[in-house]
Amino acid sequence: MTYCLAIQVDAGIVFAADTRTSAGVDYVTTYSKLHCFSTDGDNGLALLSAGSLATTQEVVSWIRRDLEQNNAENLNSFSRMFELAGYVGRVSQAVQATHRAGLQASNVSGQASFILGGQVRGEPPGIYLVYAEGNFIRASSDTPYLQIGETKYGKPILDRLVAPTLSLAQATRLAVLSLNATIKSNVTVGTPIDLGLYRRDSFRAPERSRLDGEDTYYTAVNDGWNEGLKEVFMRLPEFEWRDTARR
Amino acid sequence: MTYCLAIQVDAGIVFAADTRTSAGVDYVTTYSKLHCFSTDGDNGLALLSAGSLATTQEVVSWIRRDLEQNNAENLNSFSRMFELAGYVGRVSQAVQATHRAGLQASNVSGQASFILGGQVRGEPPGIYLVYAEGNFIRASSDTPYLQIGETKYGKPILDRLVAPTLSLAQATRLAVLSLNATIKSNVTVGTPIDLGLYRRDSFRAPERSRLDGEDTYYTAVNDGWNEGLKEVFMRLPEFEWRDTARR
Repeated sequence: MTYCLAIQVDAGIVFAADTRTSAGVDYVTTYSKLHCFSTDGDNGLALLSAGSLATTQEVVSWIRRDLEQNNAENLNSFSRMFELAGYVGRVSQAVQATHRAGLQASNVSGQASFILGGQVRGEPPGIYLVYAEGNFIRASSDTPYLQIGETKYGKPILDRLVAPTLSLAQATRLAVLSLNATIKSNVTVGTPIDLGLYRRDSFRAPERSRLDGEDTYYTAVNDGWNEGLKEVFMRLPEFEWRDTARR
Repeated sequence: MTYCLAIQVDAGIVFAADTRTSAGVDYVTTYSKLHCFSTDGDNGLALLSAGSLATTQEVVSWIRRDLEQNNAENLNSFSRMFELAGYVGRVSQAVQATHRAGLQASNVSGQASFILGGQVRGEPPGIYLVYAEGNFIRASSDTPYLQIGETKYGKPILDRLVAPTLSLAQATRLAVLSLNATIKSNVTVGTPIDLGLYRRDSFRAPERSRLDGEDTYYTAVNDGWNEGLKEVFMRLPEFEWRDTARR
């Protein structure tokens, strides 16, 4: 499995992804699922990927080739984020179509989903979830995050703490905690964690950072959170058992 | 959907369940999924149910009938918890078999799963998860909880805080927080929350209590947890962005 998320705050966007890939439980490897793109200074973009590794790798290869060969459709040829999301969806559909017959013959899914985030000059930053079917949604100020892959374990903490007013450092911390909750509950999601940072109006490829399980920051956040939660838990009110309901 | 869990601690067992039942999004109702049983003083038992409401209701009806009619197999006719779990599994399989042809004709699932917990005289308390297939597992001191239904949202908090040494009041609080996380993230799981309490060596039907969404205790736990989490979050270390990794 995979867990990736992007949080959009007023100051920019934080991307985070685990790096575990499994083809069955007996073939577990590390792959980056965060792909950052340098363009011509008119945009700064990152793509997070979940699903079939064959599909996601080929989609990213295709996108890089389109950009390098300056093909008719490429990451520089659109002036709006939603058009870029549509382009990613079309590439994903085309790659899946290439292998459909072969995959169907083995009854294997080649589906993949993506989060595209960043900024195009002339628009505010945005994050888009591109479904396996090629269509897409964008995050809103009410729900300023998107998730792909194994999304459930890490959602409650987002719902409690996310807000567009978080600083980029706070949003990074929240993304790390959401990944940490997932990593603790699902063995198919694992460290190291890849982080990406897009600063509003920078129009550069997002900055990258990687946290392994022994990273000082990662362990400090993990330990601080565990201890803090225990403290809060212990001071919550006591439930007084009273037999009130029907049997 | 449904979310039920049972936590086994040294002092006994806490049961918790949401009460929302949905037959599609346009038919949402409230049903108790916690069933407590009074027996002859030799055991104290509760059953939590998830899955097809038709199946779970009929399973509970059958179990109550077997007990009242003192049939060959009933909740009083076994001296070990694992035998009781096997009995629940057999009843569940029998009910599902009764309706299999009808359900298959409509391509509808009649599957249901259960958590059976309590104590039989001569054994320590125990909790068992009875799968839809009728087989079962029991919790251990390493993993002193079981969940059925929509289990993922409420699992991280359990993994961080659960321990056999929690008091019954603390285990109740933890169960409420785990349900609260699920209720916030999944609209098909909802209040009121049914709670059950089995005190070790009481050999009585578990005590029951119900918390609605406006209950003083429930809102105090919810608010205290939200505020406490924010406090802890804000004092965690700041991530210093440094561009360390490959693009």
